[in-house]
Amino acid sequence: MTHYLFSNAVGSFVFDEAGKCIDSGIEDALRKKYKNISEPSQEIVRKILVYFRKPEFFKAFHEKNIEITAQLLRQSVQTDNLIIQAIDSIAVLDKAANALAKRLREWYSLYNPELSREFAENERFVSVVCDSSVKKSKESIGAQLSNSDISDIEEFAKSVRSLYNERQNVEKYIDGLMESSCPNIKAVAGSLIGAKLISQAGSLKRLSALPASTLQILGAEKALFRHMKTGAKPPKFGILFQHQLVQKAQKQNQGKMARLLADKISIAAKVDYFKGNFVGDKLLEEIAKKIKK
Amino acid sequence: MTHYLFSNAVGSFVFDEAGKCIDSGIEDALRKKYKNISEPSQEIVRKILVYFRKPEFFKAFHEKNIEITAQLLRQSVQTDNLIIQAIDSIAVLDKAANALAKRLREWYSLYNPELSREFAENERFVSVVCDSSVKKSKESIGAQLSNSDISDIEEFAKSVRSLYNERQNVEKYIDGLMESSCPNIKAVAGSLIGAKLISQAGSLKRLSALPASTLQILGAEKALFRHMKTGAKPPKFGILFQHQLVQKAQKQNQGKMARLLADKISIAAKVDYFKGNFVGDKLLEEIAKKIKK
Repeated sequence: MTHYLFSNAVGSFVFDEAGKCIDSGIEDALRKKYKNISEPSQEIVRKILVYFRKPEFFKAFHEKNIEITAQLLRQSVQTDNLIIQAIDSIAVLDKAANALAKRLREWYSLYNPELSREFAENERFVSVVCDSSVKKSKESIGAQLSNSDISDIEEFAKSVRSLYNERQNVEKYIDGLMESSCPNIKAVAGSLIGAKLISQAGSLKRLSALPASTLQILGAEKALFRHMKTGAKPPKFGILFQHQLVQKAQKQNQGKMARLLADKISIAAKVDYFKGNFVGDKLLEEIAKKIKK
Repeated sequence: MTHYLFSNAVGSFVFDEAGKCIDSGIEDALRKKYKNISEPSQEIVRKILVYFRKPEFFKAFHEKNIEITAQLLRQSVQTDNLIIQAIDSIAVLDKAANALAKRLREWYSLYNPELSREFAENERFVSVVCDSSVKKSKESIGAQLSNSDISDIEEFAKSVRSLYNERQNVEKYIDGLMESSCPNIKAVAGSLIGAKLISQAGSLKRLSALPASTLQILGAEKALFRHMKTGAKPPKFGILFQHQLVQKAQKQNQGKMARLLADKISIAAKVDYFKGNFVGDKLLEEIAKKIKK
């Protein structure tokens, strides 16, 4: 008598020629138990499939399905997901810290309005307020508040400072992730700009698939669509505008510089995605050469 | 010979009948030195004022003017200014903390998406994430992240938690200020709602000058102007909607409750502004009586 072995998500089963289930269990064990075992033909598979139409299997398939999906979901999280979450968090941290710093300026200015004018940069201002050794000048037009009032403002300042500190933590974290998973992008674009590009593209895979010209204006979607709709000037750069090479370039060269960078970052992204060797230094050299010309 | 004493912002001066300055210094000293000293007549004042037209006085007047203004500014800061700054800071803290908590939900959900669904309330969710003893279930569809990844997320969560803590600090601070400077408003409206009313009105003085009907819809300006422009339904309450008596009332009674509260808060604001005795308990009793009816 011929036995047929049939395996699916819920297990392995042995059927006879009529499509009746004789046994079930683990594939290897079944193969040992039934010597004369073979793969079912198309015709017999059709009979076998009828067997699995029973309601008891519906539940088993359903559960197994969920399990497999969960497994796939679990494995779907790559380093680039972490990078995207972290860089997006930096954006929110920045916004929150700056809103709170503006609030602190107003509050603290009841006491010492001169300080707010002295330190135009928010982060610096916040850390100066935290430092209680700062005395206000006698000519200050600020009110003489009680120590408890001032210490409450300082507490507020400290919690704003903790956001700026956390921003640095997250920056370092991104730096580490970029170093380990996208060393080439990091070398050419820098950690933060590289992370922003990945976030904007949606994933490292999608970034690596983008043409350099798209990468160049990533983050300038608004200007791009305005260009396409109204014929306004096309954008020369998006996120790449923040790159120091673009920043340093003369205004008429910024577009060229962004194109050059996008070119090399596009190569770097491909190398990083396909886990190639480190070529970041070579790419940087090529950029330096082009700039000399 | 008659001497005339003339005082202004820059000091005291002694003039003769011709309007010539003889001496200057402190008023009391000059009065002792010159026995026969009197107030100048209108005519002589006119002569004296010519004397102060000299450029050397311009600078002295200018400086004195700034000094006086600074002094007035310094004294202009009242407790209600501090209350306004603090309550406005709470609004910014809330917004920042909630934006960051939302970000944390997304980030943490890479690892443990089930937790975000379990704790719908942001503050609670943040503090649960901070607590590293929380284990995720085996069935979680979240990825297995490295400890260092998780601890970075926890750091982020902690800085969000510090904002929620700071919010509580500022709340306590406001509570103290309200207790000392607006005990009646505090008794009827509560510290935070009272502070919001003061902030919305601009100052305690302006709040105390508002009619109860305006106070009732303070914070519902948008709805009020929509009503005035388009004839839409007028708002029944603004900030007062947050008051627990309005919250607890049945929907058809909420407007009445807001009117009753506005009535009593309006009285409380007047008492607080003019530093009257504490009548908060009486006002509360009156409210309780009305509700019974």
